Amino acid sequence: MRQLCKGNVAVMKGAILGGCQAYYGYPITPASEIAEAAALYLPQVGGTFLQAESEVAAINMVYGASAAGIRVMTASSGPGISLMQEGISYLAGAELPCVIVDVVRGGPGLGNIAPEQSDYAALVKGGGHGDYRNIVLAPASVQEMADLTALAFELADRYRNPAVVLTDGFVGQMMEPIELEFRETAAPAKPWAVCGTPETRKNVVTSIFLEPDVLEAHQHNLEAKYQLARQREPRHELYGADDADVLLVGFGIVSRVLRSAVERARREGVRAGLFRPITLWPFPSAALQAAAARVRKVLVVELNNGQMLEDVRLALDGRVPVDFYSRVGGNVPSVDEIDEHIASYVIARDAA
Amino acid sequence: MRQLCKGNVAVMKGAILGGCQAYYGYPITPASEIAEAAALYLPQVGGTFLQAESEVAAINMVYGASAAGIRVMTASSGPGISLMQEGISYLAGAELPCVIVDVVRGGPGLGNIAPEQSDYAALVKGGGHGDYRNIVLAPASVQEMADLTALAFELADRYRNPAVVLTDGFVGQMMEPIELEFRETAAPAKPWAVCGTPETRKNVVTSIFLEPDVLEAHQHNLEAKYQLARQREPRHELYGADDADVLLVGFGIVSRVLRSAVERARREGVRAGLFRPITLWPFPSAALQAAAARVRKVLVVELNNGQMLEDVRLALDGRVPVDFYSRVGGNVPSVDEIDEHIASYVIARDAA
Amino acid sequence: MRQLCKGNVAVMKGAILGGCQAYYGYPITPASEIAEAAALYLPQVGGTFLQAESEVAAINMVYGASAAGIRVMTASSGPGISLMQEGISYLAGAELPCVIVDVVRGGPGLGNIAPEQSDYAALVKGGGHGDYRNIVLAPASVQEMADLTALAFELADRYRNPAVVLTDGFVGQMMEPIELEFRETAAPAKPWAVCGTPETRKNVVTSIFLEPDVLEAHQHNLEAKYQLARQREPRHELYGADDADVLLVGFGIVSRVLRSAVERARREGVRAGLFRPITLWPFPSAALQAAAARVRKVLVVELNNGQMLEDVRLALDGRVPVDFYSRVGGNVPSVDEIDEHIASYVIARDAA
Amino acid sequence: MRQLCKGNVAVMKGAILGGCQAYYGYPITPASEIAEAAALYLPQVGGTFLQAESEVAAINMVYGASAAGIRVMTASSGPGISLMQEGISYLAGAELPCVIVDVVRGGPGLGNIAPEQSDYAALVKGGGHGDYRNIVLAPASVQEMADLTALAFELADRYRNPAVVLTDGFVGQMMEPIELEFRETAAPAKPWAVCGTPETRKNVVTSIFLEPDVLEAHQHNLEAKYQLARQREPRHELYGADDADVLLVGFGIVSRVLRSAVERARREGVRAGLFRPITLWPFPSAALQAAAARVRKVLVVELNNGQMLEDVRLALDGRVPVDFYSRVGGNVPSVDEIDEHIASYVIARDAA
Repeated sequence: MRQLCKGNVAVMKGAILGGCQAYYGYPITPASEIAEAAALYLPQVGGTFLQAESEVAAINMVYGASAAGIRVMTASSGPGISLMQEGISYLAGAELPCVIVDVVRGGPGLGNIAPEQSDYAALVKGGGHGDYRNIVLAPASVQEMADLTALAFELADRYRNPAVVLTDGFVGQMMEPIELEFRETAAPAKPWAVCGTPETRKNVVTSIFLEPDVLEAHQHNLEAKYQLARQREPRHELYGADDADVLLVGFGIVSRVLRSAVERARREGVRAGLFRPITLWPFPSAALQAAAARVRKVLVVELNNGQMLEDVRLALDGRVPVDFYSRVGGNVPSVDEIDEHIASYVIARDAA
Repeated sequence: MRQLCKGNVAVMKGAILGGCQAYYGYPITPASEIAEAAALYLPQVGGTFLQAESEVAAINMVYGASAAGIRVMTASSGPGISLMQEGISYLAGAELPCVIVDVVRGGPGLGNIAPEQSDYAALVKGGGHGDYRNIVLAPASVQEMADLTALAFELADRYRNPAVVLTDGFVGQMMEPIELEFRETAAPAKPWAVCGTPETRKNVVTSIFLEPDVLEAHQHNLEAKYQLARQREPRHELYGADDADVLLVGFGIVSRVLRSAVERARREGVRAGLFRPITLWPFPSAALQAAAARVRKVLVVELNNGQMLEDVRLALDGRVPVDFYSRVGGNVPSVDEIDEHIASYVIARDAA
Repeated sequence: MRQLCKGNVAVMKGAILGGCQAYYGYPITPASEIAEAAALYLPQVGGTFLQAESEVAAINMVYGASAAGIRVMTASSGPGISLMQEGISYLAGAELPCVIVDVVRGGPGLGNIAPEQSDYAALVKGGGHGDYRNIVLAPASVQEMADLTALAFELADRYRNPAVVLTDGFVGQMMEPIELEFRETAAPAKPWAVCGTPETRKNVVTSIFLEPDVLEAHQHNLEAKYQLARQREPRHELYGADDADVLLVGFGIVSRVLRSAVERARREGVRAGLFRPITLWPFPSAALQAAAARVRKVLVVELNNGQMLEDVRLALDGRVPVDFYSRVGGNVPSVDEIDEHIASYVIARDAA
Repeated sequence: MRQLCKGNVAVMKGAILGGCQAYYGYPITPASEIAEAAALYLPQVGGTFLQAESEVAAINMVYGASAAGIRVMTASSGPGISLMQEGISYLAGAELPCVIVDVVRGGPGLGNIAPEQSDYAALVKGGGHGDYRNIVLAPASVQEMADLTALAFELADRYRNPAVVLTDGFVGQMMEPIELEFRETAAPAKPWAVCGTPETRKNVVTSIFLEPDVLEAHQHNLEAKYQLARQREPRHELYGADDADVLLVGFGIVSRVLRSAVERARREGVRAGLFRPITLWPFPSAALQAAAARVRKVLVVELNNGQMLEDVRLALDGRVPVDFYSRVGGNVPSVDEIDEHIASYVIARDAA
């Protein structure tokens, strides 16, 4: 079904197509429309929407619903996500699937409500305590807001782990035509869940493991699961990368600017290409290495002061020079700004 | 004054020597003794101790006291630190100095109360929302629990930023003789603070900057400050690193095991050395590069699944092979375990 | 439909027959089985059960649901009811109907979980701030637990005011056969409610009236409504009161002991009678005056230190001597204890 | 020391003269100036002021401080007092002394911030759960705001029970000259308190008594204590009551209007008198009976819909006709309004 849709609303359409049964959250700009859509749509499919009294409460309700085997989600923006960090660590520690959407705003602190990408570290590196990882997906279009949210529910269940959709106010507020297709969603059986039935009475969902050897074994199990995800789940998109001299790397809204910059550069005779990580964790390191194997320069562009930059550098491990350009506070780099950078490389190359 | 002292208690002795005037917190094992010591000592020097009703409340009280120009601190362990992530981002965003002590326990989730180093990412990479950095110090002895806490107050004021003492239950619980010296602590003038006086009535302490250009400028100011800290504040310790073939890298309690491993390896004819980061942020990258310039192998050892490892790899940028070894859940690698690793390199070398 | 049923469970059966659509509460002994029954039954009739994070939250959820025109209830015991007093005052001030069940336990403070009647003043006299009244119903059997709860929903809607079912652990825990009849419940139209529809968008549900004259007029409206209830809603039961010399007055579980005491006294030749208030507010003062018109003595018996006693004395206004007997802390007066009192009056009379 | 002082500020001056060491509260109009004065004065005498995060928290902090043997207080207005009802019941149940000031505003619900006397029932009848009583004092002048607050600390300690100062925005906001005298305040020894010392380690401050007989005995002890207070502590003031035909009864600010009405009536040849309860609990019933022994009419005037009226009627027990007049919502009866009432009695009498 083709329709014109706003990014934040598409999140909930994708969620419901992905089998979402419950939403617990607390409103915050620029994520509030997700809650509004959840309040509107979920009751229509027999689901539950509840506005909690705080983000701390919301994430713990997510924990409870997930422990009961429900496909459940929440959404927020930076300050609210920070308040959820304890709960996210508990969900990961107890191997509970859930979907968390972060419509990133300007920060730190209260900041402003304009778009940024500055919660990358807080969600990709694990801003809560202890060793754990979130699966993190970064949509670049309204269509992906729906599709990646649906995918997040599948990945969360597959790895019994929180899956995050990391987006921003640009993609959340923009309207684009999208194509949604109804499909039979079959959530996997969850024999570990506590469902209030006699058979599941023996189940215990917990993240406490008092004996060091037991906790160590538990963490090794988590790590093995993460290792599997690192092998199977990296996703990325390439554009003009085959013969690129300069490889631009950016995710989400930034990748759309970079795509235009690639087009302009090529019109001007410069072989630029684009590498767009779709999964921020697991980071598509192998694909990036391959794509950058023959380039002279990598330029990372982000709406933060260089958070994904570390993962790009770790992936390339010194083999290619990596530059960085960013705008923050709600500003977005223009094609001109990117073009100027690319041009400077060309001049430097020609001079060499 | 020489005395036998427990690590957690030394934190508060150092804090008071560092001019700490107030402590707001909520108890959690294995950090509770810091609160106990604060409750005991602070009133004796005219300071304030308050047990808040939660960690969320505690960090916001820290915000308030800091905004009033007070030298203030809190302490907790993993779950409590996660609950403080929103407040920490606000403190950094509002450029408010404070000291936060994290006595890391096993995680994620409830985990256990045994020592780990698995909150590295949550504090060094910025587990709250938005672009900001904590200054992070990692003591390896009871003496350093006192000294680095006192230093944290100085650095927090110097950079108007949260400073973290990242330690663990081993160092917190161990007793060692320490030497404390009284000194005149002169907190800097804080003309920006809101002190309830007519002169400070015009001051506004905030992290809200609604205009994108204004927020961007604010973030550039923060970044410039962080850049200055990256140049001036990295601290590290070397042991047997001058002629090392194998360089061991570890912080906190781990560095003490590694030091023994270096000694044993040298007795056995292997040139091992130790690089101990004292500041985790700013990470002593330049010093590590220098120390590793001639080694054949770097071995990072942590009580987590490889968090500082990323910073070591970023510092070395592919120039030296980096290996990793870890124990988690409260287990600590023995000298034997490290030695076995070192031996395997030697065998590999000799075989080559 | 005849069935054996527990008092606390009967509350919810009556509630659903009375059209209850939603329950918000927090568990507390000896009221928790009401929440359990609500969680079990309400979803079966398309209703909502939600365990709030505290009694303060629960009563405010009741406020919200009631403002949306929903038939809504909560239940608790003493300490929880105290926490709800602010919310109850707000509900009464905003003229919002709801049903509150108090299964009274021993108090004050934590007390114990055994039955008492010591929340009489807190609910009949208005334990929250400002001038308002709760309608208060006092069941004496499992059948009445169902019937009076259903009635409470009707009275609440009729007077747009909180209606309370004041009961205790005895009646809550006892099992008796009851007869429930399905009937079509037609909640009145609520044109004042805020239902999320365009027509109700103009409605405002509030208890704030800043202008003194406006607030005074509002309170006079409330008072007029209460005056109407005082005329129309008093309910009571008589037993052997026609020719009584001694009139026993007690409500709830106590009335069942008094009924046995009346029977024993009459077997022993003493003309005793029973007056049982069914509504505690409005108190059946006129009926009590009539019933006591020719008696020599009134004996009030309560499971508290004399709370309804004041209303009995106010009703009789010095025309008949009023005695008082009580047991508290979970103790209940035996028929023997009551009989001893009655006998003493007879001796006194004969001596006179 | 003679000085011009505002009522709310006089509360804290009296509190400090009465030995108050700590204040925990949450601001609310029209009581906030008490908190401001507490924040200003208490630190000057080595005391503690803390703004809690809610009234629920504040009253529990009062519980804690009182259990530690500290002379402690809080203040609020209607909505805040309602939130404290659970804590007040716990304080009474655990026999903990404290002082609570209620600057009554218009209610119920949000109401307005103008003065009323409508929290009478909530504080005099025990708005919390279980059988307990507050000692309640009602100042009628700024001088009494100070004096009765100081007295409240003494009575609270004498009876180990909460003592309430029930006042309103008129008396709170008015400025009058007062005379304060420093005196040595000797709080009684509190061997039952838990002070963190080895000797008090065995003490247990609690309101839980699980065995019915034990709880009953505890309540009988409380009741005996209350009985003693009923004998010793009633306080009242008479004005022109000796030869009165018409006795006006009112407390607090109302009594000042009534005094003027008495004067005017007497100038007009009508023998009016005034009875002013100073303690609302224990209510000065015996004194009122005596004062009303020869009057033809009692007129109760309140800023509520007839709350103290019940206590007047209970005291007089039908022996004298009792009328009632009130204004609410922030309105106060004028001398004219009262005079009209008195005149109507005279006309009725002359007609008879």
